Parts: sequence; C-alpha cells; structure tokens
Amino acid sequence: MSENGMVSRAKVLTIDTMNPTVKKVEYAVRGPIVQRAVELERELSEGMKKPFAEVIKANIGDAHAMGQQPITFFRQVLALCSYPELLNDSTFPEDAKSRAHRILQSCGGNSMGSYSASQGIDSVRQDVARYIERRDGGVPCDPDDIYLTTGASDGIVTMLKLLVCGEGAARTGVMISIPQYPLYSAALAELGAVQINYYLNEETCWSLDIGELQRALDEARQYCNPRALCIINPGNPTGQVQSRECIEDVIRFAAKERLFLMADEVYQDNVYAEGCQFHSFKKVLFEMGPEYSNTVELASFHSTSKCYMGECGFRGGYMEIINMDDEVKAQLTKLVSVRLCPPVPGQALMDLVVNPPQPGEPSYDNFIKERTATLSALAQKAKLTEQVLNTVQGISCNPVQGAMYSFPRITIPEKAIKEATDKGQQPDMFYCMKMLEETGICLVPGSGFGQKDGTYHFRMTILPPNDKLQILLNKVKEFHQRFTQQYS
Amino acid sequence: MSENGMVSRAKVLTIDTMNPTVKKVEYAVRGPIVQRAVELERELSEGMKKPFAEVIKANIGDAHAMGQQPITFFRQVLALCSYPELLNDSTFPEDAKSRAHRILQSCGGNSMGSYSASQGIDSVRQDVARYIERRDGGVPCDPDDIYLTTGASDGIVTMLKLLVCGEGAARTGVMISIPQYPLYSAALAELGAVQINYYLNEETCWSLDIGELQRALDEARQYCNPRALCIINPGNPTGQVQSRECIEDVIRFAAKERLFLMADEVYQDNVYAEGCQFHSFKKVLFEMGPEYSNTVELASFHSTSKCYMGECGFRGGYMEIINMDDEVKAQLTKLVSVRLCPPVPGQALMDLVVNPPQPGEPSYDNFIKERTATLSALAQKAKLTEQVLNTVQGISCNPVQGAMYSFPRITIPEKAIKEATDKGQQPDMFYCMKMLEETGICLVPGSGFGQKDGTYHFRMTILPPNDKLQILLNKVKEFHQRFTQQYS
Repeated sequence: MSENGMVSRAKVLTIDTMNPTVKKVEYAVRGPIVQRAVELERELSEGMKKPFAEVIKANIGDAHAMGQQPITFFRQVLALCSYPELLNDSTFPEDAKSRAHRILQSCGGNSMGSYSASQGIDSVRQDVARYIERRDGGVPCDPDDIYLTTGASDGIVTMLKLLVCGEGAARTGVMISIPQYPLYSAALAELGAVQINYYLNEETCWSLDIGELQRALDEARQYCNPRALCIINPGNPTGQVQSRECIEDVIRFAAKERLFLMADEVYQDNVYAEGCQFHSFKKVLFEMGPEYSNTVELASFHSTSKCYMGECGFRGGYMEIINMDDEVKAQLTKLVSVRLCPPVPGQALMDLVVNPPQPGEPSYDNFIKERTATLSALAQKAKLTEQVLNTVQGISCNPVQGAMYSFPRITIPEKAIKEATDKGQQPDMFYCMKMLEETGICLVPGSGFGQKDGTYHFRMTILPPNDKLQILLNKVKEFHQRFTQQYS
Repeated sequence: MSENGMVSRAKVLTIDTMNPTVKKVEYAVRGPIVQRAVELERELSEGMKKPFAEVIKANIGDAHAMGQQPITFFRQVLALCSYPELLNDSTFPEDAKSRAHRILQSCGGNSMGSYSASQGIDSVRQDVARYIERRDGGVPCDPDDIYLTTGASDGIVTMLKLLVCGEGAARTGVMISIPQYPLYSAALAELGAVQINYYLNEETCWSLDIGELQRALDEARQYCNPRALCIINPGNPTGQVQSRECIEDVIRFAAKERLFLMADEVYQDNVYAEGCQFHSFKKVLFEMGPEYSNTVELASFHSTSKCYMGECGFRGGYMEIINMDDEVKAQLTKLVSVRLCPPVPGQALMDLVVNPPQPGEPSYDNFIKERTATLSALAQKAKLTEQVLNTVQGISCNPVQGAMYSFPRITIPEKAIKEATDKGQQPDMFYCMKMLEETGICLVPGSGFGQKDGTYHFRMTILPPNDKLQILLNKVKEFHQRFTQQYS
C-alpha cells in the first residue's frame, strides 16, 4: 500500500512462502495428462479439428461416467430419502420405502439435511457391522469400531494422520506397495511422513513377497521409524487378488515387526479370475487365533465408489478399526468430529450397499439381475483387455484378476526415451501424452504409480462399454505399433 | 510375538506415540458435554428416570434436527437427480425438472454417481459466479476462482493448509477472533500453526476494533510470522453483523500489514436486526478501488448448511479466491484433486441455493413463502432469546443481529468457580454440565470458543421451534436462579 497510489504490494502467499509439504504432493490420476484431456474436449466442442472424434477417459475408475447404470433400488431409496413426499407414491416398491423410512428415522428431524453423529449414523454402523459379520463367516464386528467416511480416501488419510510423529530418524515411515495408488504417496507427502516402497513382483502376477517386505523394512529402519504397512487388495493399479496364504504371511510379518496394518479393500466385490477369491484381512486375522486377533492393529477401508455400484460422486465409505488403543480411539473420534460428519446421502448409500434387498423382497430379483450384469460385464472386459493387449508386440499384461484396471508393461524404444529425457519428461508420460494427442485416449503413465527403474507401464481402466473398449484397445495397439516404428 | 503362545505385544499406536498435533485439537461443539447428552438420551430411552423428559440439543446449528423443514423445490430437484426416472412423473413441477436436467447434463454419464472435476462441476461454478455478481451489485466473478467444497469447513482447512510454513519464530500465525468458532483453533492446532487471538468487544455488541487487531498482531510478531486474518461475519458464536465501515477498516488493515484475508460468510442470509445488513468482503474490497481490489488476497466461504436452507447433512459449500498467486492456485487445484471431488449431491444443492426458482417459474411463489417463513421465524426467535435471557439476573445478552446463536455472559458465583476449579473443570463447563444433568438442555460452554479471562458465557442456538424455545429459555432462567442461589 502506498500514499502515492502506486500498487506494488507483494503477495502474502507465493509458491516460495506456501506450505512446502503441499508442494511435494503429486496425484497422477488427475495430473497434467488429464488436464490436457479436458482441454482437448473443450477444443473439440469448439469445433477444432483433431485426429479423433472424442476423448476417451480411461484414466480413472469412474464407472457411471463410462456408462455403467446405477442400481435402481439404491437410487429409489435415495430419492425417497431426499423427498419423503414420495413415500406416498404407489409406484415405489415397498422394500425401498421401508429402507428409506428406516434411514430417515435415524436422521435428526427425519431429514438427510441434519448433521449425523461424527462417527456416522448409528443404524448405518450397525448395518455395516452385520454386513462384515456375514462377509467374514461370522467373525464378530462391533458397530463401535465402524467409522463412516467421505469415501475411502478420507478414512485412509485420517488413519495416516494419527500415525505420523517424530522427527529425523524417528520420523514415522509407512510401507506402501509399488506400484501404488497415489493417494498414499500424496497423503504421506502432505503429512511429512516417510514413504517406504516395497515392490510387487510383476513376473508372478504382481504378487507380494515377504522377502521384499523384509528388505524394504530393514533398509528403512536405518533412516526412519516404520510403523504401518498398507496393502491394497484387490490391487490398484495392478489388479491382482491376494491369496489367503499371502494375507496370513503379511499378518505374521506385521505382528513380528510391530506394524499397524491398513487394508484398502474397496474392490472387494471386483474379483474376476477363476480360482481367485476375496479374503478380508479381518477374517484371516481372526482365523489365525487370539495370538494375532487380540493384538494386531488393523484398519480396513471400504467405499460406495467401486464394486458393482460405482457411486463415486456420493463420497460414501467406512473404515473398521481392530485392536486400536482406547485412548487413541477417543482421539480419532474427536478428530473426525471437527469436520462434523460425512455426507449423509453417502452414508445412506453405504447403508444400502451393506443391506441390499433380501430374497423375498420385491426388489430382490431386479437387484441381483443388475448386480450380476455389471459384474459379469466387468469380468468379460477384464479378460478382453488382457487378451488384446497381449497380442501387441512390446506390450505385456498380467491377468486382471480383480479391481478395475490393467497395468501393462510397455517397451519404449531408446530414441523415444532420449527424446522424453531431453524434454524433461518421464518416458511413459511422453508416451501417454503422445497417445492422447493422436488418439484421444487418456491413460495414466506408470510413473504416477511407481514402477521398477527402467520399466514403463500405463494404467487403463476396463470400464468403457464393450464396443468402446474394443475400439480403445485397437487404437492403443495401433498407436503402440506406430510409436515403436517411429522411434526405432 | 512369541513362540510360547504368550501374547504381550505392545500396541504400535498409543497415546504416547500418536501424532502430537492431533492431541492438541479441541472441538467443543461436539465435545464432552455433547457426549454426555447422547448418553442421557440413551438412558432416557432405556427407561431410566431423569428430572426431564427429553434432551434438547441447543449446542449446534443443526436446523433440520430442530424441526426446520427443507425447501420443497431443493428436495424435489435432488430426488429427480437421484432417480431420473422421476423426470417422467407429471407431479413434479417443470422448473424442478429443468434444473435437474441441467445438473445431470453436467455429470459424467448423466449420473450424480460420477466423480466431478475436483474443483467442482463447471456449470455449478458458473452459477455460483453469477450469484456472487448479483449479490455484490455487479462486481465481476470468475468461475475459475470458485472451488466447491465439502461444507465450508473443508474450504477453510484447505486454505489454512496452504498458508502454513516455517519453524520457530518464522512459524505461520493466523489471527482469529475470540470468541471464535472452534474449527479454526482445531485446524490451526492440527497444522501446527500459531493461533493469534484478537478479542471482540462484548460491550459494543461484539464489535471488531482495529486497535485490538493491531495489539494482537504486534504482540504476535515477536514470536511468529502472522500471515492471515480470519473474520466470521455474521459472527459465530457471537451473532454480530459487521458494518460496512468496519469491513473497510479490516481490509485496510490487512493491506497495510500484508495479511491474507479469510472471510467466513456462511450466515450471509441470517441477518435479523433492524439497520443491519450483510456486506460481503468481496464487494467492499472491490468498491474500495484497484489499490485494494488488485492486491488484497481474499478467500471467502459459503455453505449449504446455514441461512434458510440448513442442509448440513449434504456437506455442500464453495470458496471464492481473489488475487491468489497463479502458481499457488495451481497448487490448490492439485491439492483438492487428491480427494477426488466434493460430494456431488452437495454440489447440486449448492447450485440450487445460488440459482433458486425465478419469478414466473412454477415453484417461485412457494419457494419465497418457505424461505420467508424460515427467516422470519429465526428473526423472531433471535429477539425472543435476547429478551428472555436479559430478564435473568446474572445473565446479559447482546442482541442476536445475525447467524443462529446467542452467546450470553453469565455470572458464576465464587463458590461454584471454586468447586469447578477443584474438579479441574472450567467454571462454565461445570455450569453447562450441571444444567444438562438437571434440565436436559445441552449448551456449549464459552470456554470452548474462547473468552476474556474471568468472564463466562455459553453458546445456545436459536433453532428450536418457538414453543420449545420458550420452554428452553424458561428452564435456563430457572436453572440459573437455582444455581446462583445454591452457590451464594
């Protein structure tokens, strides 16, 4: 400010004076390549000429955006809860009405517009607990251990936040798989925790190897205090489904090495490969007996965003915490209270996911039909993706056993690597950016998830509708051939 | 772990090894008194005898829980968006259908189940920008400066997060009013920033005094780096509405002292007192001319949770940022992308709030009727609360000019102060806890918001329905008299 009218005030908040941990955050799933895809869409809509007619976003697990239809029953109940006048509408099925009635009864003033308890609506947490008990063959679940969340991301960040402490060599370290889902690296960067990488084994279908966990942990102990181990099962971006044996080994490792376990299980219904089955960490832990079930600290996460429902926009989710110290739990409850409550429509949706129509109820048959159709379509697309990509010389792709992604390895010619490096770009970012500009297909480079040095990948969702997926895969194939030729 | 079956593993995560900044977080609005209220409700429902028939929660601005009805139009549109089959239902008004149609067209796959852009749905941000322009008499607003949020809290925490840096005497300090809304102190504690208190002047209806800002700032400069100034207008918990002159002074102060301004304006429609009017910081800033409007950095916050709509459960909100450095803005956009997007139903609701039925549209008359009824009822209750409380000897209460709370000062007898201190309790916590146990009324002690040493207050919402509010006020009156007598 100045008396002579000159305006020369420097900004209070600049790139040099902002929070340095925020600057370290990276999130490739919505990174530069997606920003360019949005620009290209705008340019297309403004009539600009491109070598493609539309942008296909295969970068993010956003099922409805790719044309997947919501489950009718879920949406009927949400409409009833939003506008309870509809409870008098005879076209709505009775089971949808009774579910809506029950949810509204648990809301202050019978309105989804009221805040809920910070931990989530009591009756929803009870339903979640019963769902977990059914899923896990009767292993007991206490609703007090359930925290409803704003999507799974919110729960994961909250748990990591509790775990971070110390400075220098005493700083909390958290083990995450490489490749990983970049929420983990982003949250750890923001919290100033140390990221400890353990590598999944691409040669054996992205399996988790205890020897590799041990290597990563032993090395990390030299410069930080490793306190937690994160597992994503089924895997994102890698699509593997862990065997029961592997989960037991991980639990034994966590117990031996005193690590807090975080199990990201948001794809628990997305298992496609024959012989594969989802095993929850909770169930395996309890079946290993009291030596483990009474001691190993575990947080597991679920969401409304994936599986057969794909309701990402509602930001629903829950976490279950096992063997958490009582005082810490009180701190957790306090911490979540500051943000008041997770979105109530998302809580309602979570309730429907864990308490869907039952046999004999009017909506049951249609619910099963819709769920089955979505899951079988995904299973087919998982197979198709693997098959087509593996026909391309220079692309090799593990089976998509579960989740929603393929993470194929790509061979990038030396000349292309050099051109990328000269531009200061990761070679797979260079590859994906070029693919986007030439074909309109938006993928995420493997470097955004982490990969072994000298290897290159991309993540591609299997979500586009069958005909579009077929076109997309053919375009990827053609692009890869052209790219390889161009740089050979 | 042990071979002999003994289980003696110590927990990984204990109160001593958890994140120390989380331990410092306090949030009185959902603190111990509310936990006790929930217990009492459960005890009542189990048939336990109490000196009251029901718990009345006047601790939190949760309008629907207190019986306020949602706006019909908003809920119709939300039902249509949730279950688009209803677009064929002839009982829904055409304007609700066209709004729903427009919102769905902006969603991927025409579904609220899709992720939106991280910054929020484009068309919603455009509607917000037009709303701000109308509200501010034509001052321009760029949709690129709008970020949709998960309630206002999310936006406030995100902005504070950007601002925090430095260590020791270079640590970021943030000025907040005392009394304050405890989200601010909680977020600052969690981020490890320095809280700088400036006191509002209770004697002049909680006015903000520039001399006091200067005092607080000058003192703080000795031990930290003050970088931001937070204002809540209309005030929470204090209910004052700032004059235009005061806002100009604050802006001049922020410019002179190089402070980033944060204006919490979630109660912008809640102005009751004659002669009072809401002035947005944005409008005043722009009317002060380019010397200010081109330089002062401002973030302002709004929400779907307050005003006449009271839709807290949907967690909708937005923030507008003015004069933010471009590189910092890119970092902000990156940061919000990690959490994917704010809840889409909350975004839809925010859109309706900024773009309600217009004259000539079928829902207009009913919308105006409902909005007016809610706001006049609140104005009446504001008046009633002030009047009744001021009849009590030992309670004195400023006019509730705006927002949703009364924050009266209470005289606590010496003997009661001593008993509280002996128990290690704040005297006003002791008072409020006793009131809860004896009357079932749940208030929040002033110590949860901050107050001048030696003064005591409580915060009480004006939200209960008129008859219940009358009973509540009488019970408070009787309790205060009994309490005073008991400890005199």
